[in-house]
Amino acid sequence: MEISELGEFGLIRRLTEDLKIENPGTLKGVGDDCAVLSPTEGTQTLVTTDLLMEGVHFDLTYVPLKHLGYKAVMVNLSDIYAMNGTPRQITVSLAVSKKFTVEDIEQLYDGMKLASEKHHVDIVGGDTTSSMTGLAISITAVGEALPKDIVYRNGAKETDLICVSGNLGASYMGLQLLERERAVYLSQVDKSGEKKTSNSSTVNDFQPDFSGYEYLLERQLKPEARRDIIEALAKANIHPTSMMDISDGLSSELMHICSQSKVGCRVYEDRIPLDYQTAAMAEEMNMNVTTCALNGGEDYELLFTIPLSDNDAINKIEDVKVIGYITKENLGKYLICRDGSEFELKAQGWNPLQ
Amino acid sequence: MEISELGEFGLIRRLTEDLKIENPGTLKGVGDDCAVLSPTEGTQTLVTTDLLMEGVHFDLTYVPLKHLGYKAVMVNLSDIYAMNGTPRQITVSLAVSKKFTVEDIEQLYDGMKLASEKHHVDIVGGDTTSSMTGLAISITAVGEALPKDIVYRNGAKETDLICVSGNLGASYMGLQLLERERAVYLSQVDKSGEKKTSNSSTVNDFQPDFSGYEYLLERQLKPEARRDIIEALAKANIHPTSMMDISDGLSSELMHICSQSKVGCRVYEDRIPLDYQTAAMAEEMNMNVTTCALNGGEDYELLFTIPLSDNDAINKIEDVKVIGYITKENLGKYLICRDGSEFELKAQGWNPLQ
Repeated sequence: MEISELGEFGLIRRLTEDLKIENPGTLKGVGDDCAVLSPTEGTQTLVTTDLLMEGVHFDLTYVPLKHLGYKAVMVNLSDIYAMNGTPRQITVSLAVSKKFTVEDIEQLYDGMKLASEKHHVDIVGGDTTSSMTGLAISITAVGEALPKDIVYRNGAKETDLICVSGNLGASYMGLQLLERERAVYLSQVDKSGEKKTSNSSTVNDFQPDFSGYEYLLERQLKPEARRDIIEALAKANIHPTSMMDISDGLSSELMHICSQSKVGCRVYEDRIPLDYQTAAMAEEMNMNVTTCALNGGEDYELLFTIPLSDNDAINKIEDVKVIGYITKENLGKYLICRDGSEFELKAQGWNPLQ
Repeated sequence: MEISELGEFGLIRRLTEDLKIENPGTLKGVGDDCAVLSPTEGTQTLVTTDLLMEGVHFDLTYVPLKHLGYKAVMVNLSDIYAMNGTPRQITVSLAVSKKFTVEDIEQLYDGMKLASEKHHVDIVGGDTTSSMTGLAISITAVGEALPKDIVYRNGAKETDLICVSGNLGASYMGLQLLERERAVYLSQVDKSGEKKTSNSSTVNDFQPDFSGYEYLLERQLKPEARRDIIEALAKANIHPTSMMDISDGLSSELMHICSQSKVGCRVYEDRIPLDYQTAAMAEEMNMNVTTCALNGGEDYELLFTIPLSDNDAINKIEDVKVIGYITKENLGKYLICRDGSEFELKAQGWNPLQ
């Protein structure tokens, strides 16, 4: 169905009519000039926002709309967890061009609802409009935390341990894989020449080859915000001194923590957690796996520092690894390689404006 | 300067380094995973968001970037006032294509800062990224209000008076004027033929003719959110039973209030406030001025209902006019024309998806 058949209000009604409110703090969701929220007494409010543009942040030739919606929400929730907070509400703004149908937007929204439900977050408003070309998605997440629980980027101290959750580089290798298969597909379309628009069997029978690398795809297409880590830290009574999520790459994020905390760091190459598939894919593509893990980005894992005294406690938490330690600022920021040599860390993370 | 010279973080630093925090409730602005806000005790939080796309919501051939930034913020603050709240913080997300320079984005941001300062609002975060084509602006505003003060759209009651602030249709006529002058300009460019890219005096000497209609332009390019009305109502101890701001046109907004409040209405054509320039421009363009006032939109005036008993009090407030009254739902929603005839109100407001 064409979106113009429903119009703005019709589309909004269709997308939002089955929304359920999960949080008692959500007093008014979609349908007025503003959403009305009642913050839990004693908490502070966390706000984060992201703007995703087609052709820059996602490529619809290989990203299903439902996954895109899921990921768009997840990356915002990840920012709330990265402050050690609890996400409560999101607003969703969409600008869609004429190429999208009502069903397309419903799929996108379904992914958003799925991610929201999983994290008990309410969709409380937004904006739905048109665009001249492509799709734009802007999500704002609102969360809350007790003042004593909030973790900033600027609290890392000398001798603190540097920790990461999960493993790194998988999402980036998933993207490489998707781009490789797309290139293979496009070259077959090219070869089929005039058959391009006909029922060319060469093209229609194309099956991208992802076998053995399903985990990489999942990390790229369907990242999960690490609420489980936040919960595990709270249970273990560990209060990180600094924390952020890894969206631009470990190296870039470490630089942020070090510069905001006015400290230096040492990170050990052999401690950086990697999945087997990440390593295998890097080898297959002739890439340095450490570079991928340092600079790939889109991991949405948590990077945090803890006091040295929490060493035993952190080792008991599954899926968290100590990768190095914080030093005085004048000692610089270095990666210690497997052979003992030191490399200065540089932020080569993904930069949409360079 | 090209944006790529600065990169994402360089551009953000340049735009945000001189931001001053005005609200004690803004604990952490730009620079972490989230902004951290401390809601005033006992208040509820208001959240609203807008996504503006180049070519759909604005045309940079006649909208200066500074005005665009100002307006983009103002329309969000208007939504907070429309709940009878106080805006406190905004986040600003921008997606910019290669055609924009650093100076362009600074101008846009200057307009945003100006609007924010005027309303004592802090810019606390956002996202800055690139787009394949054009400019996208997504702003989220956070405000607060005491629970007893918040005004929804659904509280209008039979016999309530319907009021509007300021005057209507001016912004729409301003847009007509801008489009007329652009058409004149383009036709001169066309006529000048090959001289298009040379120093053709025909084109370069083009001066759009806005004389006598400066007010209309100002309403279109630099709308003001009506904090003054909210303050005047509070001072007069008038608590509206329903309220919203007029962005899509009086007719469309009245329908929202009536359907959410489950009531009908009567609005008198001769009571709709018009500026002299709006009427003159409508006549010059051979348009019905009432239609412009009902359906033009982008007025950012406040539409609200009050108990009949507040009639005397409301008449003492400058720049507010009673335009009709609320009826039982089954009596429908009608405009009573100057000649006494009744027309059913229809929402013909601006709809970006139709």
